[in-house]
Amino acid sequence: MKIDLNGILNSKRLAISRALSFVENTDELDMTLTDALFNHLGQAYRIGVTGPPGSGKSTLVDHIIEYWRGRHKRVAIISVDPTSPFTGGAILGDRVRMGRHYSDQGVFIRSMATRGSQGGLSMRAQDAADIFDAAGFDLIIYETVGVGQVELDVVDAADTTLVVLVPDSGDDIQAMKAGLMEIADLFIINKADLKGANLAFAQIQSMLEMRHPEVGEWTPRVVKTSAIQGEGILDLAEVIDAHRDFLQDNGIIRQNFKARILSRIRAQIEENILDQFWTMEKLETLENAFTSDDIKLILPGKIVENLLKR
Amino acid sequence: MKIDLNGILNSKRLAISRALSFVENTDELDMTLTDALFNHLGQAYRIGVTGPPGSGKSTLVDHIIEYWRGRHKRVAIISVDPTSPFTGGAILGDRVRMGRHYSDQGVFIRSMATRGSQGGLSMRAQDAADIFDAAGFDLIIYETVGVGQVELDVVDAADTTLVVLVPDSGDDIQAMKAGLMEIADLFIINKADLKGANLAFAQIQSMLEMRHPEVGEWTPRVVKTSAIQGEGILDLAEVIDAHRDFLQDNGIIRQNFKARILSRIRAQIEENILDQFWTMEKLETLENAFTSDDIKLILPGKIVENLLKR
Repeated sequence: MKIDLNGILNSKRLAISRALSFVENTDELDMTLTDALFNHLGQAYRIGVTGPPGSGKSTLVDHIIEYWRGRHKRVAIISVDPTSPFTGGAILGDRVRMGRHYSDQGVFIRSMATRGSQGGLSMRAQDAADIFDAAGFDLIIYETVGVGQVELDVVDAADTTLVVLVPDSGDDIQAMKAGLMEIADLFIINKADLKGANLAFAQIQSMLEMRHPEVGEWTPRVVKTSAIQGEGILDLAEVIDAHRDFLQDNGIIRQNFKARILSRIRAQIEENILDQFWTMEKLETLENAFTSDDIKLILPGKIVENLLKR
Repeated sequence: MKIDLNGILNSKRLAISRALSFVENTDELDMTLTDALFNHLGQAYRIGVTGPPGSGKSTLVDHIIEYWRGRHKRVAIISVDPTSPFTGGAILGDRVRMGRHYSDQGVFIRSMATRGSQGGLSMRAQDAADIFDAAGFDLIIYETVGVGQVELDVVDAADTTLVVLVPDSGDDIQAMKAGLMEIADLFIINKADLKGANLAFAQIQSMLEMRHPEVGEWTPRVVKTSAIQGEGILDLAEVIDAHRDFLQDNGIIRQNFKARILSRIRAQIEENILDQFWTMEKLETLENAFTSDDIKLILPGKIVENLLKR
């Protein structure tokens, strides 16, 4: 694909859309886009939002969009969905949201499906964010329904990571918290009108207080919201701003930028190496390794060895 | 590590535990274990259970354990948790369950954290299952809290994949269904006493009816349960048995076995290739690529190229 660099830099929606489609659909991701955009990156602020299905992430994100639009900032949303590993899948919710912001040129919402390779998704999400960054969007929000490793990687690549929890998610919430504790800069207890909200708030507070942050390290915060009622949104916006100020004062936004580029480079290298390795011939050899009726004649370790030797 | 093969084959808990710990903690996974166990694999039936946090998976799995124990079958559970990508994390819930089945030698529950590499987790989960398979467990249950790609890969490697949903998960459930539709052999609407259960049941039924299964293809089923009340469990057990019979009648259990070994081989090859590539020297080169103050002098694509050339 030829990238319409000027179109992107001038924030033309068609140029952005086409570049996004390319990133999402190309079989062989390479560094062409990153290189082309590289000198125009690093201006946008990136937020990652994750949490279990039904926690109200979309509604919260809508409030964040509105808040930033009220300050005349331009906002892009990349929605990463745990769709089929086989066929991809369309997300109804995003179409509804698209409609709501349809006439607002300052908002751009895009879904990305988790098809294909896992590493591929993180790379593609980052390339999509880079397009928005170069196009001059002030805020880029990664939103994901998944709580798996890949989705965590995506939101963790943001400058500020929000983890949305609901008070009534039952005992699995313990596991969620254990897993998400390390990546969250900010916990949101949404649906704060439900019983259990104060308990959940106190639990997370006490977990956070048990940590001993090092000097220059951010101490994660907890905020209660009721996204549907629009309650707690200003608190949320303030804590996001506080985290952003913290990052800027400590030069961390710049560090994040470098770290993202390095991880993008690393992912590209690994993709290329594996692509080069898996020739049609090797794939066939693997595929036919066990066509014999008595597959136990040959050990799996031997097949690994033989393929690596070629 | 020296694998105590006889201990595993004789189902000694200490030998199994040690092998599991090795699989979970070793930095360099290889095929030694797979090769050692290979001629003793393929007897166990593998079920994968996934669904959002709070959907009641653990309680359902407990019922499945009891049902199989009632038939004097031995059951192993591998619980895959979306814990920290950085430090791992302990899951409280599993300790509680461990306690409940503590005196039952026919049940073995093991948690695996999603630390480290993503591909690594699928490999480790499979190796863990192979240990139980060789140790003569009749049923192996993979259970995961995550709905991300890696977790889907884990449960999808099972013979029968159960997707647990709750009626009140809000609009995100649409996205979940889109993503999980392809892997589910059986949907469970748990907490069927909640309002919305019949609607959810009907929705999934109609989605399934829109599919046109090919000859010899399983048509996924939907079951309503109330795990806490113990309702619907017999229906569930019957549908699981029906799917198992279907797989056996069509030779699919054997195909699954081959496919799992092939994907294990492939993952091992890719891990070895990347390990070989990333020498300390290359890692340092990458790490230092952007130490200059003006990082924009060198393009990311050039760094990829240079590292691949070495």
